[in-house]
Amino acid sequence: MSRENRETDPQLEDVLPLHVGGKTRMVSRVRLKTVADLRRIYTPGVALVSKMIEAEPEQIYRYTSIGGTVAVITNGTAVLGLGDVGVHAAMPVMEGKAVILMEMVDISAVPLLLDTHEVDAFVEAAALVAPTFGAILLEDVAAPMCFEVEARLKERLDIPVFHDDQHGTAVVVLAALINALAASGKRAADVSVAMNGAGAAGSAVARFLLDYGVRNVVLCDRLGAVYRGRRERMNPAKEQIAAETNIENEQGSLADVMKGKDIFIGVSSAGLVTKDMVRSMAPEPIVFAMANPIPEIWPHEAIEAGAVAAVDGRNLNNALGFPGIFRGALDARATDINEEMKVAASLALAEQAREGELVPDFMDRQVHRRVADAVAAAARTSGVARG
Amino acid sequence: MSRENRETDPQLEDVLPLHVGGKTRMVSRVRLKTVADLRRIYTPGVALVSKMIEAEPEQIYRYTSIGGTVAVITNGTAVLGLGDVGVHAAMPVMEGKAVILMEMVDISAVPLLLDTHEVDAFVEAAALVAPTFGAILLEDVAAPMCFEVEARLKERLDIPVFHDDQHGTAVVVLAALINALAASGKRAADVSVAMNGAGAAGSAVARFLLDYGVRNVVLCDRLGAVYRGRRERMNPAKEQIAAETNIENEQGSLADVMKGKDIFIGVSSAGLVTKDMVRSMAPEPIVFAMANPIPEIWPHEAIEAGAVAAVDGRNLNNALGFPGIFRGALDARATDINEEMKVAASLALAEQAREGELVPDFMDRQVHRRVADAVAAAARTSGVARG
Repeated sequence: MSRENRETDPQLEDVLPLHVGGKTRMVSRVRLKTVADLRRIYTPGVALVSKMIEAEPEQIYRYTSIGGTVAVITNGTAVLGLGDVGVHAAMPVMEGKAVILMEMVDISAVPLLLDTHEVDAFVEAAALVAPTFGAILLEDVAAPMCFEVEARLKERLDIPVFHDDQHGTAVVVLAALINALAASGKRAADVSVAMNGAGAAGSAVARFLLDYGVRNVVLCDRLGAVYRGRRERMNPAKEQIAAETNIENEQGSLADVMKGKDIFIGVSSAGLVTKDMVRSMAPEPIVFAMANPIPEIWPHEAIEAGAVAAVDGRNLNNALGFPGIFRGALDARATDINEEMKVAASLALAEQAREGELVPDFMDRQVHRRVADAVAAAARTSGVARG
Repeated sequence: MSRENRETDPQLEDVLPLHVGGKTRMVSRVRLKTVADLRRIYTPGVALVSKMIEAEPEQIYRYTSIGGTVAVITNGTAVLGLGDVGVHAAMPVMEGKAVILMEMVDISAVPLLLDTHEVDAFVEAAALVAPTFGAILLEDVAAPMCFEVEARLKERLDIPVFHDDQHGTAVVVLAALINALAASGKRAADVSVAMNGAGAAGSAVARFLLDYGVRNVVLCDRLGAVYRGRRERMNPAKEQIAAETNIENEQGSLADVMKGKDIFIGVSSAGLVTKDMVRSMAPEPIVFAMANPIPEIWPHEAIEAGAVAAVDGRNLNNALGFPGIFRGALDARATDINEEMKVAASLALAEQAREGELVPDFMDRQVHRRVADAVAAAARTSGVARG
């Protein structure tokens, strides 16, 4: 652990007191002081509201919490960099994610732990409970299960389903890449990208960059390059991503793959990038080292090794993306979070970065508001908005 | 609709504004104003909390919201007296129930709509999501499905599962009955009871009274008495309750059954009790007319017809029972809400009624606090408490 890390990472004694009793709680938005209150918010008065919704289903948006509420769902199989810690140990992370949604964009966010490793059971339970919510945020579900869970829920439900580890990461990386390319005067189609991490986040980032116009992206996992024809540690998801990326079918270690590349993107908890590996990249390389809590290489080390831009997960964090994306999706009563909405989020983030920065400040609520507006507008123009 | 009802029931224009935007929302219990805050409540700091819980699972009670949170789950099949209105139309009722838990006993209550009519699917989804919660309140699930759902969830889970329409009603009825018997100098074993309603609530009330020592209970549904050998409109649940009640195997209409009985208990939305039917009961009858929103007979009419005590659902309401029951169960970290805990709740309610009243005032938070303490104590003495 480097000196920088030791100095700045929060310690257990600073962290624990904040989590006592949990970080989230449901509260009432109405007064309950008299029997008259009770009879208006509960039986018999509430029956009038139920009958109205039975007759006019769209009234749920006006007379219930559903349209303003997001479920934050996990099965605890890929929690941060910790792996499969089980559903209970995932709860502090889900509560944290919910706090971000509540505090940054005024969404009521409900953590839900689903105690299953089976795709069918996960999909069924999430789908059955979905009518309670305006959207579903999938979180910390391991690859490759996460791909099928998300695809099947998106197909089945008429509310947005968004696996943040995949798409939230991709949105934030693209935002930073747009600004890095602009600063270095390069075009997306001309740059080459080496990535460390070929799981949920890595695959989603790669696909999002390809959709944006980047052509040369090579993913690495612990065994090195993911390429067509590789035999060890492959699975259908990796076969698929190998078919979509690595146009020259490069093989070799991460160090081999990084040689001559313009951009490094790290989204794995594993992997180690040295100064020499950065020096082996093309001139004026760009380094996004997002592994958490310890990045693949510290930004100051990457800069020392010649990078023109280097950032770690402290600044290039999913928390920049998902709050505005969900706020925008709810504002538009969207049935989906589609590619147009994700690109709109990346562009809105990119244009809000201050001069010399790759991404804007997470703590600025106005940033999230503008992302939300861009996402809601994209929902409307792409035909997935109901409101 | 009688004049009394028109004057006192809330009207749509008084009710609707309270429900705009929904009655519940999740909020943060921690501050998120700086990046340092973010890094303590979310990554990287939160990883320390997750690792602690992975190593010591009981720490969920201290460092997450789980132990203080109750799921309020329905599939919308028996909402108030409205029937199967669908999950979305049930949401205002679930939010109302959650508001009562939050406002009266400081429980974080999360409404969950489960979009299924199948027992297997309901049980599976509720069981998978159960690790998120300290207890499950089942609400407005139709009979006979509710019996199997509850039984299977109780068997499978190590947290309390409590169908309020059954047991909450039973607890409150027994509390009132204890005081009515004391006032009239009668013993439970000597009184006869006619009930209208043989569904979830009626069956649970009957069983709870039998367990308490009442011997003569006859249930009626729309066809009249439920008796052994009846052929029309029976199902396994009704066969079962017919076997357990109606010791003289009485047949006939509700009017027939009420003749000579000491106590009438109505827990159905259907059924009509006239003054003549009250006059046909034993001397000094007791009338609990709990149908909602319009009781089987208005209390003042029952009194005019000779009842010594008469009460409707306005005062004899489930909302008297479940808040303290759940607060007590969570306080004791109970694995179940068992018969001992329910009886303790009834006794605590009964003893808190003011002189001349059958049950205490719902709005008095001290009432719920004392019920909670009695329930938690019963959990400990009956061996289902973990804390």
